[in-house]
Amino acid sequence: MSSSANGLNNRPILASIHTDAFQHNLNRVRELAPESKIWAVIKSRAYGHSFDAALQGLSSTDGFALLNVQNAQLLREQGWQGRILLLEGVFHENELALAEKLSCDLVIHCEEQVRWLEAYKAHKPFNVFLKMNSGMNRLGFRPAAYRTVFHRLHSAGYKMHHMTHFANADHVNGLPTVGSQMEVFNETIEGLDAPTSLANSAAILWHRNALGDWVRPGIILYGVSPTGLYADIEHAHLKPVMQLQSEIIEIQELKKGDRVGYGGRYEAPEDMRIGIIACGYADGYPRHAQDGTPVWVSDANSGGGVICPIAGRISMDMLSIDLRKAPEAKIGTTVELWGEKVPVDVVAHMSHTIGYELLCALAPRVPIIVK
Amino acid sequence: MSSSANGLNNRPILASIHTDAFQHNLNRVRELAPESKIWAVIKSRAYGHSFDAALQGLSSTDGFALLNVQNAQLLREQGWQGRILLLEGVFHENELALAEKLSCDLVIHCEEQVRWLEAYKAHKPFNVFLKMNSGMNRLGFRPAAYRTVFHRLHSAGYKMHHMTHFANADHVNGLPTVGSQMEVFNETIEGLDAPTSLANSAAILWHRNALGDWVRPGIILYGVSPTGLYADIEHAHLKPVMQLQSEIIEIQELKKGDRVGYGGRYEAPEDMRIGIIACGYADGYPRHAQDGTPVWVSDANSGGGVICPIAGRISMDMLSIDLRKAPEAKIGTTVELWGEKVPVDVVAHMSHTIGYELLCALAPRVPIIVK
Repeated sequence: MSSSANGLNNRPILASIHTDAFQHNLNRVRELAPESKIWAVIKSRAYGHSFDAALQGLSSTDGFALLNVQNAQLLREQGWQGRILLLEGVFHENELALAEKLSCDLVIHCEEQVRWLEAYKAHKPFNVFLKMNSGMNRLGFRPAAYRTVFHRLHSAGYKMHHMTHFANADHVNGLPTVGSQMEVFNETIEGLDAPTSLANSAAILWHRNALGDWVRPGIILYGVSPTGLYADIEHAHLKPVMQLQSEIIEIQELKKGDRVGYGGRYEAPEDMRIGIIACGYADGYPRHAQDGTPVWVSDANSGGGVICPIAGRISMDMLSIDLRKAPEAKIGTTVELWGEKVPVDVVAHMSHTIGYELLCALAPRVPIIVK
Repeated sequence: MSSSANGLNNRPILASIHTDAFQHNLNRVRELAPESKIWAVIKSRAYGHSFDAALQGLSSTDGFALLNVQNAQLLREQGWQGRILLLEGVFHENELALAEKLSCDLVIHCEEQVRWLEAYKAHKPFNVFLKMNSGMNRLGFRPAAYRTVFHRLHSAGYKMHHMTHFANADHVNGLPTVGSQMEVFNETIEGLDAPTSLANSAAILWHRNALGDWVRPGIILYGVSPTGLYADIEHAHLKPVMQLQSEIIEIQELKKGDRVGYGGRYEAPEDMRIGIIACGYADGYPRHAQDGTPVWVSDANSGGGVICPIAGRISMDMLSIDLRKAPEAKIGTTVELWGEKVPVDVVAHMSHTIGYELLCALAPRVPIIVK
């Protein structure tokens, strides 16, 4: 199944990235926010999907948003001529010249960055997305300080935009609410005419009054739920972009009462077969995954497949599944860890986390194929 | 603090790998298993530490054990002339020629691999580590099949070794026990004279009767606990090899009752300062980390530092800490996420996992400096 760059068959684990699904999800964001421009958020190697794949699949975005000016450089080298937003601005003053050369837009979230910009002699003024801390208390200026900073940067010649980030667009009962943050935001920017950027993925799906001029979809571009629950996006017409596959590399015939793996967590309730898969937590599969987490096992005869549950603790390089529903499975049989058959949200939920974390954690040792 | 290859100051996160600690831990293994040779286990980029660092710090090992023949090739290209063990053998028959060219030793754990070896015309017979499933039920031959396979490969000319792996060398009450696996192992190999390989890190520390001729230390070479609990190695004279550092990039002044980050998990019990650190789950810091997980914050004045607790859910690129004990902390202050001041075991425990997972999950976007 998998082939390494040198043509050798290798350890059989592979992530396939479906650029048509990227395109589909981006179109879906356009439908949901038809009046807004789109920053496609591709930090953390496009949430583990690779910048290459993102550039191919998301090329009709208005801009890419990411963290490092070095990654912006990579995008420019690969031919991207649209806008680029540095989501945390520059980390040090001496990055400003490169950011300008690469025509990056900057988020500005702290006083140090304001001083750097005031001191900087730009040839062409940056687009500045001034970050307001409207209640999330992570990055940005409190409302009391915000207007002063806005005026300072505006008078220094920068092209100003208003920006904030929601703490609970994905939480029905979380505090602060989107409504309370919107109220703070709108009051604070009153009379300061400039484009706005507010909505993350959850707001795009569920807070249509909070979109702003530039939306910032991240996780939904990858076809994954902002809440961590697949049920929340099941009818949102999104497609999973990443498919993680591997193969069965060993089959063990257990007797009733035999135990599997470290700690012996799984105990065979009857004589049965266990399949060992070449995928472990050092590939990015979560060690927190409980017994019962679904793995899809292909059936070469039928062309279909069947869900088999995780049985036993995840090892560094392997995991084990209950093969009672897959009597045809053998060494070499292909399995899907997540993708179309097994939403990554389901694996995340069975591991008490969210799909974001699993995608970003895809290990560098897993080969990626862009399709 | 951190500098990228092109000389630009970058996002301020950095993993420092201390090769003297590698050497120290390897010497410690020699003391614990003076009669045994050592396979230093460096799969998964040396548990996230980089092959470069492992080659520098562990060069006095008898051999390196890893997963992929491609990584073996990397080691040879970098000049390693000692032994190399492929811990799961080859994944496909067509890798055997390269494995032989690179003088790899092979673990053999399934019938397919036996047939490949029987069919293969080796110029120089491989060292084979025949894997017995003595109760872990992951890889290897059941005792009933083991002796036959041993004879087949022995008569095909391969240099045989006996090998098994413990499921509970780190669990006092887990099943199967080390004792029961040892009993199965010793009974099965009776009269089949060949070197043995048994002990993982936990067995090296705590099961001195289960060492065998080749020990296979992994996690203790990195100065981390096999059980996931730092208390279990606190007096074992090991040194942490990896130090993960970053900086404060933002400080928020909270009012009593303000909440921090996604979901607003942390609520300020009084007016206080929160520090935002450039490190998130997409860097490999666990999203499962609970409030109270320690972060060490340096104090430039005293030259020392103080532990500050995580306050609020870990974000993709940031985390937040309670700065009440660090009144001098400011933007640019260095913090240690794990290392000498904060054992990675403690972070893992506060995240309901083990240090192995955190080390392996170190993201490719985190620069590594080998010291």
